[in-house]
Amino acid sequence: MTARELIVLGTASQAPTRHRHHNSYALRWDDQLLLFDPGEGTQRQCILAGVVIARATAVCVTHFHGDHCLGLPGVIQRRALDNRATSVSLGPLPILYPGEGEAYFDRLRTASVFHDTSDVLPHPLDEDGPALELGPTARLSARRLDHRIPTFGYRVDEPDGIQLDRAALEERGITGPDVGRLIADGRLLTERGMVELEEVSGPRPGQSMAFVMDTGPCRGAEELADGVDLLVCESTFLDHEAELAARYRHLTARQAATLARDAGARRLVLTHFSARHRDASVFGEEARAIHDDVVVADDLLTVPVPTRR
Amino acid sequence: MTARELIVLGTASQAPTRHRHHNSYALRWDDQLLLFDPGEGTQRQCILAGVVIARATAVCVTHFHGDHCLGLPGVIQRRALDNRATSVSLGPLPILYPGEGEAYFDRLRTASVFHDTSDVLPHPLDEDGPALELGPTARLSARRLDHRIPTFGYRVDEPDGIQLDRAALEERGITGPDVGRLIADGRLLTERGMVELEEVSGPRPGQSMAFVMDTGPCRGAEELADGVDLLVCESTFLDHEAELAARYRHLTARQAATLARDAGARRLVLTHFSARHRDASVFGEEARAIHDDVVVADDLLTVPVPTRR
Repeated sequence: MTARELIVLGTASQAPTRHRHHNSYALRWDDQLLLFDPGEGTQRQCILAGVVIARATAVCVTHFHGDHCLGLPGVIQRRALDNRATSVSLGPLPILYPGEGEAYFDRLRTASVFHDTSDVLPHPLDEDGPALELGPTARLSARRLDHRIPTFGYRVDEPDGIQLDRAALEERGITGPDVGRLIADGRLLTERGMVELEEVSGPRPGQSMAFVMDTGPCRGAEELADGVDLLVCESTFLDHEAELAARYRHLTARQAATLARDAGARRLVLTHFSARHRDASVFGEEARAIHDDVVVADDLLTVPVPTRR
Repeated sequence: MTARELIVLGTASQAPTRHRHHNSYALRWDDQLLLFDPGEGTQRQCILAGVVIARATAVCVTHFHGDHCLGLPGVIQRRALDNRATSVSLGPLPILYPGEGEAYFDRLRTASVFHDTSDVLPHPLDEDGPALELGPTARLSARRLDHRIPTFGYRVDEPDGIQLDRAALEERGITGPDVGRLIADGRLLTERGMVELEEVSGPRPGQSMAFVMDTGPCRGAEELADGVDLLVCESTFLDHEAELAARYRHLTARQAATLARDAGARRLVLTHFSARHRDASVFGEEARAIHDDVVVADDLLTVPVPTRR
């Protein structure tokens, strides 16, 4: 199986700090490479992280606050450069964003003078639901979140599949190309009689990942996080700042962990930390009281999607 | 005397590299703090370099290619944040740029959603000449350069002053507050008769600095560089790439050094290096064959303006 992992490019909210770049994330998911919320500096952080923008298959912008989108012009212009440098076109790059922010998307797309061969495919969102089928193992959907401006969170789902039972296959003498025929046709006539696919396989639930920021606690966040293997979630504040979090429509680490626990999300990645907390380990401590698999994001950290259940 | 120095924030042309941020510079000049060509990531580089955006007194954009301006939204939004965080207003921030690029300036200024308390003072340029008087020791002027899109280079001049001759003052018994009176009135009646300021002083040429990028060799570059103490100059290419340089309207290190030598510029800072040359020392080697005081810029390097002649 190919890698499924989150690559953290930046983790600061609002403004960068000495130790944290603006918010930015990449997700490797089989042959897909998604960029989420490219904050300022994403272009360079990609280089440092070994993420090749030319290979990106989609960009997902949650909302148009600067820390979530000011790196978009750099991503688009880099794509244009790479498209001219290669002999074959890279193909169109879908960019998903809240439709109400169309004007901001247009400005970012044309923020400076360049030869636009980026082949960007604008994908404004206006409602909850399926958003884009990226490939056989990556279906992208979106839900509205509860922030101060229109905001969508994202979710990547691998469709449910089947898991073959090797012992059951062997018992029935099914080997080699016959296995492929059985999968393709759903049944196979063997010397010992007809074998139905269900007899020699069980269900294999697809893996999933959700990206939730910026938001107060809301139904959309719960739907995105529902049963995911990896939940990347903002936790701008700590519990003792819950009033601030409510006022600015953000989450505390406690709220993020509660969301993960109640939704049955397996691994929680906390990020988008307020600069007032220089040592982000406090976010992890607060969350681990509620959820057991918590990763505190740091610039250039790679977080694997947990292995299949 | 307070510091006059260039702080290099980034040195890459076109796209950043593993070792070089996008183009970006700050100039400390007495009580002035100028930002030149804020490329993507300027906001964070300022933090690493100890440059406080809230203290900036002007921003000069040569042209609207991305590597020279994509950090502008971050600078403006950071300014807005700081303006709200302080009890007194920081005062307006003039931003100079080629008037033909007004549409790009507007997009960068409103690239994402923020509470705009930045107090930006747009200062579009449409002709050569004096541009802005920043303070008693910093007059900003601009000249058109020869690039593929409208581009202005900049120059900071301290007006010429006088240098008092301590020995001549002492000889005439002029001390204490009388020195101030002599300077203010241009003459002073002493017990030994009238003393004219010229008798006890000589001229003191003002210091100057020029910022030249991106351009092919041209009259504007020569006028900007004329006799400056510090010349910050693009040298995207090397001599053997002179054809590339001519095609894209850029300078080679040899051309930058020739410009500095012919204009009588004292210290030359080379920057804006093409990513094809990973070791930038080759630019310095080429330039030093022509000019003796050459600095090869590197991210976060500080270059003092040479002491007064």
